[in-house]
Amino acid sequence: MVSDDVLRTHLQELRRGTVVVASLAALRRPDYGYALLQRLAEHGFAVDANTLYPLLRRLEEQRLLTSEWNTEESRPRKYYRTSDSGESVLHRLLDDLAAVQTSMTGLIEGVDR
Amino acid sequence: MVSDDVLRTHLQELRRGTVVVASLAALRRPDYGYALLQRLAEHGFAVDANTLYPLLRRLEEQRLLTSEWNTEESRPRKYYRTSDSGESVLHRLLDDLAAVQTSMTGLIEGVDR
Repeated sequence: MVSDDVLRTHLQELRRGTVVVASLAALRRPDYGYALLQRLAEHGFAVDANTLYPLLRRLEEQRLLTSEWNTEESRPRKYYRTSDSGESVLHRLLDDLAAVQTSMTGLIEGVDR
Repeated sequence: MVSDDVLRTHLQELRRGTVVVASLAALRRPDYGYALLQRLAEHGFAVDANTLYPLLRRLEEQRLLTSEWNTEESRPRKYYRTSDSGESVLHRLLDDLAAVQTSMTGLIEGVDR
């Protein structure tokens, strides 16, 4: 019998790095924080605002995202967009994610044999 | 231009949780720490001994691995094996990893559209 905590911790660890990949992919279409949060959740990437907002600021500092204030709506909102550098990092991360899948399959088949 | 550090950090974050999955999968066939390290590396999961050994102890504390000393060889070695609980967690993690891939594909296609 595995405690829920143990399973949850391992699932969280597995998910942590993927939020960066999902954010960079999603922000090819510019969006503000809360709308991105909802979009990620719709696609099965549940993430807290307390996790996502600092992450967006970190990715902006690293110049993987650019931002722009949209003042045309009733409430000004900061729109983030994946930069060219962000696109290049995204490609590397997606390649790596695919490589993990391939490695895992190889490992599991190697053990079964 | 993205600094190597930025890319490396994101790659590491993405990889971190997968070492648990890889270890649980690999240890369906019992092995000792150093042999596992080599087996993981062969399959593209490069991991430091300083990371792997504490991880094995943590997984044992969580009863996802069992261990047994093999004293038949010239040097006694602790062999780890994935427990029934470990197998059940492994299944959940592999399902989640597959779900991440599906979610990511959906997200990317949704943005392209």
